[in-house]
Amino acid sequence: MNKKPLILVTNDDGITAPGIRTLIEVMNTIGDVVVVAPDSPQSAMGHAITINSTLYCSEMSNIVGPQKEYQCSGTPADCVKLAINELLDRKPDICVSGINHGSNSSINVVYSGTMSAAIEAGIEGIPAIGFSLLDYRWNADFNPLKPYIEKITLASLQNKQRADVVLNVNFPVLPDGEIKGIRVCRQAKANWVEKFDKRQSPMGRDYYWLTGEFIDEDKGKDTDEWALSQGYVSVVPTQFDLTAHNAIQELNSWGFEN
Amino acid sequence: MNKKPLILVTNDDGITAPGIRTLIEVMNTIGDVVVVAPDSPQSAMGHAITINSTLYCSEMSNIVGPQKEYQCSGTPADCVKLAINELLDRKPDICVSGINHGSNSSINVVYSGTMSAAIEAGIEGIPAIGFSLLDYRWNADFNPLKPYIEKITLASLQNKQRADVVLNVNFPVLPDGEIKGIRVCRQAKANWVEKFDKRQSPMGRDYYWLTGEFIDEDKGKDTDEWALSQGYVSVVPTQFDLTAHNAIQELNSWGFEN
Repeated sequence: MNKKPLILVTNDDGITAPGIRTLIEVMNTIGDVVVVAPDSPQSAMGHAITINSTLYCSEMSNIVGPQKEYQCSGTPADCVKLAINELLDRKPDICVSGINHGSNSSINVVYSGTMSAAIEAGIEGIPAIGFSLLDYRWNADFNPLKPYIEKITLASLQNKQRADVVLNVNFPVLPDGEIKGIRVCRQAKANWVEKFDKRQSPMGRDYYWLTGEFIDEDKGKDTDEWALSQGYVSVVPTQFDLTAHNAIQELNSWGFEN
Repeated sequence: MNKKPLILVTNDDGITAPGIRTLIEVMNTIGDVVVVAPDSPQSAMGHAITINSTLYCSEMSNIVGPQKEYQCSGTPADCVKLAINELLDRKPDICVSGINHGSNSSINVVYSGTMSAAIEAGIEGIPAIGFSLLDYRWNADFNPLKPYIEKITLASLQNKQRADVVLNVNFPVLPDGEIKGIRVCRQAKANWVEKFDKRQSPMGRDYYWLTGEFIDEDKGKDTDEWALSQGYVSVVPTQFDLTAHNAIQELNSWGFEN
């Protein structure tokens, strides 16, 4: 490439999270980086956008590195909309989101703020990748991920990734050198079995905490869960056309047209 | 059916919205109704869930009608999780969400709280339908929709709708008797072109309102947008396996396995 690619970086854990710091570090070796990320954690925000309240956004000063950085009061999807339509001079060549502190594999993609940002970029016509590590800890070790993030991002740029197929990349928790490689996968059919932890406030009012157990009953060896369990990085091509095309014929037999 | 079906009703506009009141009225003619809905509007919440704060939920008194009603402090997806895992004695036969004040056709499905509730039910193994009217007004006329909502809900129950295919039903704004019928459709390839309205607060701080224009460049006559423009009710079968299966082969040619 003659010109350096313009890379939009965002996340859902907030602009100060160690995960996005690692992502910025890798992206600075690939292109010109602009960060537009939430000013506070936005985990499990799904594809929420802010339409009934105002959005604040300010450029950060005292940045360490060549990138520009903006922090925003909105959701991850808001950040991407604001970046593309208001803050950036030109359309970014790619949008990368993460590195999320925690898994976005399998059904988690539906709840994921990290992936909602990447999907929002896809909807706006920009090739996008969401990166997540299966480690919820704030001090998780992101170093082993760096060569894989670089490889996948360069492959996306070189192969001119389609904007309507967003990559959902998840990393197993393994020490440097022990990740076995990359596997292209489908989303495993798994789900959470919720358990609500019911408590009482000091004022005597009942409240709940949402907790749950992840259940993967998918036996396939082509799923993201399988790849991760075997020590591979999983890459799931993800779409925002939610139509279940194979169900249209069945629904047409229900007699709606009578 | 020997036993009346148990129907879970929810929405994203909040438990007091006229849209959910119409939906409850229709569902009371079909089965035993339990309402678990947000205590305040949750539009455009996407598939957000509440994991970093507490959830409050209380049963309503002075209900007009045979249904039970609970109001919840969380998102639409939280309401469904709480209903299924904590509040209901048995698994509901169906979950209906809406009627949304405003469109959830085409790409709007991605941002929709109404559809996130229905999709959450699908993930939990419960057949589900989201209903939306293309009229954002609080005093929109929901009466012309009633026979169609009844017909679609009964068809779902009689045909044993699959839980992994959630119905996204949208209604055109037409007077009683002028809706032309029902069409099973695919999600139109359309998107929003955002425009941020930049203002200054009384304290001198810049802020933004998200606004935008809906652009539908999909010429197909099998889309929800087309059906709605022609006066039909659109029914899009919607899935939560987001894998772009047709992109897996292409990604495997990117050389990730080397």
